[in-house]
Amino acid sequence: MHIYSFLQAVRDKKPLVHHITNWVTIYDCAQVVKSLGASPVMAHAPEEAAAMSGIASALVLNIGTLTTEVIESMKIAGAAANRKGIPVILDACGAGATEYRNRKSLELLDAVKIDVIKGNASEVASIAGLAVATKGVDVGEVADDLRGVAKTLSQQRACTVAVTGAEDIVVGQGKMFLVGNGHPMMANVVGTGCMATSVIGTFAGANPEQLPEAVAAGLACYEIAAELAVKKSEGPGSFKQHLFDCVLQLDEKQIRSLQQVH
Amino acid sequence: MHIYSFLQAVRDKKPLVHHITNWVTIYDCAQVVKSLGASPVMAHAPEEAAAMSGIASALVLNIGTLTTEVIESMKIAGAAANRKGIPVILDACGAGATEYRNRKSLELLDAVKIDVIKGNASEVASIAGLAVATKGVDVGEVADDLRGVAKTLSQQRACTVAVTGAEDIVVGQGKMFLVGNGHPMMANVVGTGCMATSVIGTFAGANPEQLPEAVAAGLACYEIAAELAVKKSEGPGSFKQHLFDCVLQLDEKQIRSLQQVH
Amino acid sequence: MHIYSFLQAVRDKKPLVHHITNWVTIYDCAQVVKSLGASPVMAHAPEEAAAMSGIASALVLNIGTLTTEVIESMKIAGAAANRKGIPVILDACGAGATEYRNRKSLELLDAVKIDVIKGNASEVASIAGLAVATKGVDVGEVADDLRGVAKTLSQQRACTVAVTGAEDIVVGQGKMFLVGNGHPMMANVVGTGCMATSVIGTFAGANPEQLPEAVAAGLACYEIAAELAVKKSEGPGSFKQHLFDCVLQLDEKQIRSLQQVH
Repeated sequence: MHIYSFLQAVRDKKPLVHHITNWVTIYDCAQVVKSLGASPVMAHAPEEAAAMSGIASALVLNIGTLTTEVIESMKIAGAAANRKGIPVILDACGAGATEYRNRKSLELLDAVKIDVIKGNASEVASIAGLAVATKGVDVGEVADDLRGVAKTLSQQRACTVAVTGAEDIVVGQGKMFLVGNGHPMMANVVGTGCMATSVIGTFAGANPEQLPEAVAAGLACYEIAAELAVKKSEGPGSFKQHLFDCVLQLDEKQIRSLQQVH
Repeated sequence: MHIYSFLQAVRDKKPLVHHITNWVTIYDCAQVVKSLGASPVMAHAPEEAAAMSGIASALVLNIGTLTTEVIESMKIAGAAANRKGIPVILDACGAGATEYRNRKSLELLDAVKIDVIKGNASEVASIAGLAVATKGVDVGEVADDLRGVAKTLSQQRACTVAVTGAEDIVVGQGKMFLVGNGHPMMANVVGTGCMATSVIGTFAGANPEQLPEAVAAGLACYEIAAELAVKKSEGPGSFKQHLFDCVLQLDEKQIRSLQQVH
Repeated sequence: MHIYSFLQAVRDKKPLVHHITNWVTIYDCAQVVKSLGASPVMAHAPEEAAAMSGIASALVLNIGTLTTEVIESMKIAGAAANRKGIPVILDACGAGATEYRNRKSLELLDAVKIDVIKGNASEVASIAGLAVATKGVDVGEVADDLRGVAKTLSQQRACTVAVTGAEDIVVGQGKMFLVGNGHPMMANVVGTGCMATSVIGTFAGANPEQLPEAVAAGLACYEIAAELAVKKSEGPGSFKQHLFDCVLQLDEKQIRSLQQVH
């Protein structure tokens, strides 16, 4: 897989990525898309949700601070995105934490054709209908199972599934990619997971004909930038700023020498 | 025009700048006002919108993530600001992107006496009623027209108009100022446009008797700080942090030697 | 008081801290909790507010951008937190600025058993029912009175009261602690007050049996990190990023040598 070509497509096509996302990391989601050379737009009013998805190349839905009203806007935007045929990406942020969050996630999955579901181990397991405690999931121990969970969910929902962790698992269209890039520092920074989803949306918007590959390439690029940023950083605050710098500057040579996609 | 004196007025009077703004860049808007030495307050509940504008020196309205409810709060705050006679600044963020956004912008302009309208080329053209595509406007090609658009809109709405771009155009009270400061890096950073509006609001709040001059001076100061920040930066992440540092430290000598206001 | 032991409890227990907070500093509140080694969760939907507080170790309520709907969610979360017996912390952000804000603060205090009230001088005075102008309170001049105000409010509401300023005053359970740490740079940065409350919530969640001590220890740790961060910074932008770095890295030796708690 030629990872850099997916980034090049992002920089060439500069896709408009419509987000309906959470209020905690909304800035970071926009900034990471902008740093990739694409255009973010955040718009959640139900009256313009369809129109905004109608001019976009991808739609990112993130339920981090969901409300019933925001979920309704997501359904409207999702329906418009489905009609237009652009990829819809769901970040199952916090799924498993409350019954309400689980119910709303499934409601969304039933109402909208989701093309990519992204979450950490417990979020994806929760979406797949498995009973997993949201706190204290040990990714190491359940690693073998996780691949199975991702495959099952991919088949259940006929979509690409991305499970992030020390090793990311991407499953879709009968293929599986493992992404070994990234750094433990990312776990100290609020928003690294949400940004990963926005990156996925951007890569999917520029490469819609190869979704599983685009998802894996996006995660690899983002996490390579993170590895480079850690080297310049003293902690989570300085890391996040360098991350945006490194995403903007990411080049083919860095990707070639650092990528760990299998 | 003695630009530094407008900044000095900001630092001396420390105006309270009431914002009803978007959820993406709300922190940055507050921080840039604080970095200027003034006081930001963000408050959108309809029950306190009028009271908050009643103790403020300027009101900034930014429709970036508008909803019908938030627009109603803007009308209430705007009416209070008009009664008190403090400047009201509108950031026409994303105008032109959807029919809903256009309709709500015009609704606001009809309900509230707006003193300063700020946008990029396509946003201002959209507000002026011209049919311009929101994506792909080439500022260079339409530069001559843009000045005309700004003049027309300034007369239509009897207000000051600021069109930001490589060269900012400020038109009001029959005068025109061109601000040549700034740096291309700003286009890589989410929020630089929203922050410009908050800066305008702060300068307008401290210098309400000379609005077009205050708007031009505010843009010049902010963009000079951006030029200084770029020199310390490696990319969009580090740039934004240095921008706040440079705004706080901006002094008369820097302004005198770097200002490009005509 | 062995301040480091309170931080150690945070890092060992990694409490989940549920926030219903404002839209300006929501990211910073989450990131400071994460930098302490704990887990933040921001969730304001009324349908899940009780469930989220039900799995948390502390609840932080911040009225910075309150609306009537958000206050209702705070009451629901607060009731669940009270039933579970976890500490509830209120940041009286902006109390005194509008009649609506005062009324809603008192409504919340009557509906929920608040364990810690935190504010600056004018906010706490406003909550205590004293007529104090929100702008222009000179903390120096009213310093003696402030301790009295804190004591009175602590008795009125049977809670711990933290008044932040050049010297923080913590009063609760008949005890008083004065925290002399911190740096004037903090006043140039939006969110330093909100983050202080999230720190208090985190320390209270990990040390619920000694609330006044936990509050004082939390403020001291946070403000020592701020002192260390200022040394690496050039202004408010770089300061905030270094602050997160320094909170993460804070160690026993730094605390011992710099703490000024009496």
